[in-house]
Amino acid sequence: MPELRKDPIIGRWVIISTERGMRPHDFPVQKKEIQTSHCPFCEGNEDKTPPEITAWRKDGTSINGPGWEIRVIPNKFPALKVEGELKRKGLGIFDKISGVGAHEVIIETPKHNEEFISFSNERIAKIFWFYRERSRDLKQDSRLRYILIFKNHGYEAGTSLEHPHSQLIATPITPKIVKEELTGAKTYFDYKHRCIFCDMIEQEHFDQSRIIIENESFIAISPFAARSPYEIWILPKRHSPDFDSISDEELTKLSIILKDIFQRLSSILGDMPYNYVIHTASNRNFQDPGYWLTIEADFHWHIELMPRLTRIAGFEWGTGFYINPTVPEDAAKSLREATVEKKEEG
Amino acid sequence: MPELRKDPIIGRWVIISTERGMRPHDFPVQKKEIQTSHCPFCEGNEDKTPPEITAWRKDGTSINGPGWEIRVIPNKFPALKVEGELKRKGLGIFDKISGVGAHEVIIETPKHNEEFISFSNERIAKIFWFYRERSRDLKQDSRLRYILIFKNHGYEAGTSLEHPHSQLIATPITPKIVKEELTGAKTYFDYKHRCIFCDMIEQEHFDQSRIIIENESFIAISPFAARSPYEIWILPKRHSPDFDSISDEELTKLSIILKDIFQRLSSILGDMPYNYVIHTASNRNFQDPGYWLTIEADFHWHIELMPRLTRIAGFEWGTGFYINPTVPEDAAKSLREATVEKKEEG
Repeated sequence: MPELRKDPIIGRWVIISTERGMRPHDFPVQKKEIQTSHCPFCEGNEDKTPPEITAWRKDGTSINGPGWEIRVIPNKFPALKVEGELKRKGLGIFDKISGVGAHEVIIETPKHNEEFISFSNERIAKIFWFYRERSRDLKQDSRLRYILIFKNHGYEAGTSLEHPHSQLIATPITPKIVKEELTGAKTYFDYKHRCIFCDMIEQEHFDQSRIIIENESFIAISPFAARSPYEIWILPKRHSPDFDSISDEELTKLSIILKDIFQRLSSILGDMPYNYVIHTASNRNFQDPGYWLTIEADFHWHIELMPRLTRIAGFEWGTGFYINPTVPEDAAKSLREATVEKKEEG
Repeated sequence: MPELRKDPIIGRWVIISTERGMRPHDFPVQKKEIQTSHCPFCEGNEDKTPPEITAWRKDGTSINGPGWEIRVIPNKFPALKVEGELKRKGLGIFDKISGVGAHEVIIETPKHNEEFISFSNERIAKIFWFYRERSRDLKQDSRLRYILIFKNHGYEAGTSLEHPHSQLIATPITPKIVKEELTGAKTYFDYKHRCIFCDMIEQEHFDQSRIIIENESFIAISPFAARSPYEIWILPKRHSPDFDSISDEELTKLSIILKDIFQRLSSILGDMPYNYVIHTASNRNFQDPGYWLTIEADFHWHIELMPRLTRIAGFEWGTGFYINPTVPEDAAKSLREATVEKKEEG
């Protein structure tokens, strides 16, 4: 059973994942290959993954067989496990919680070599539709406090399988950086009676220099204090704390802006390694009498996209103080001026 | 002039380093080579670096010439600059500070291919002696709020030059993670009237399972909530908020424990990439009337050493919530049982 442990100094929670229990020889230094043959995510290899949770399938195809377009499965080596009771325990000055949670994989396409940039708008919208549906479903489990959705692409971004996929991890605590954002947004709201993200969108419209593109429902910006080159935040214009409040129409608008951004990034940086992550409010339990006190209405969900072009060295790691060698306004300008090729999946 | 920018949501400060102003083609993806020929840090190439600040030299050798054992120089491409006034400015909802600071390099040996593991205890003690002396000197500059000392070794740990060296960055603000630690230690002290690090040492002595080695002055442990495999903290047994309070005798004791730890790590993991960083209290201005209120006596300096064996993926990056695949007690046990070869510099 994996467990969560809390650093008693700054309150940082860590998963101690006994499941993965790695030995020294499991860490091959400077190895860069990622699995390409015998891919368990390719169509036809459905028996190599745990049974699917849900899928977008062609009519007449069978569950756990070929004929799907997008497939959601449990992670074969989960960081957290769905079974078990949520137990909190003290160990002298230390604290821990049992590692209850969920870890799912969203396989974005049956084709091994396809990439986000060539996905149709329909496919992108559908991927995010699955994110929404899985979030809504997992929120019914009152042990789960947070749903984190993210994608790793490329070795430097931490992926271990090349086949396009994203992941969902549901945790029994709110992760540290998210909690800091929630607290920051709340503090600002208490002081100003306005949402800091809504104010930021207004400020970006006033300054113009950090806007990359926008449409009716979303705006993509280089954040003022970007941590690394070409970091991009995509914010919904409609204020909502929860990603899973996104409407079907907004999913379409989001797919258009995402495809556009990936094309711009690709024209400048090629096939760069990247991560994206959805920051949303914590799960709120409607049964909980404290619900109306913890509504987190002051938060504003958004997507953070980070090309992984710089390495995280001792300075960043030891201080949380990043060195970004590209001025955010310059990054926004390059991206605004970048060519958008019309690549479509064939 | 580089500048610092503050993320208005969680208060994370970032250096916008115009000095390094990188263009897209400066980011070669998947390039792993680090400079080995024409090394500016090798003996005989002193003219390829900015003029030295201080050095440990053989008698009769000249400044900026050969004949040194350890050499301290300004970084040729500094993240922050010593010249200039400390200016704070608002930009709508955003805040920034001018990028005043210092960025120095400690060249640990004249020999390109030597490594920490083969350094004599005397050399290791002297490296940390230079850290102490440079800290004490830079603290006299009241614009500087924090002195961060760290080492990157290996590509994955973010180094760009192979020749053994460490770095010092002095910043006009206290970096985020350090501030969180200071605040955490203060909160605990206010509640318990005891230092949390001193309590942690006591707890580790009680539990035994996470102690790697200790001597009269220092203890090396696998932290309870280690972020990654084989993360090690080295804590002084004497309570002091400030690294630069270390005595000459303690420098010797530290060099013994560090050499031992590097030999144990090397026997298990080989030449692994790693970072270490010294966490110490913020600089306190004795002229400042608020000095006695901000004494940070509740903090306890220490060294955090992190072999870089896992990659930082979307999950860790997006949440500050690390997944550690090795149980800290198992890591401590492996290190306790590891062979310590007696490698000495020839």
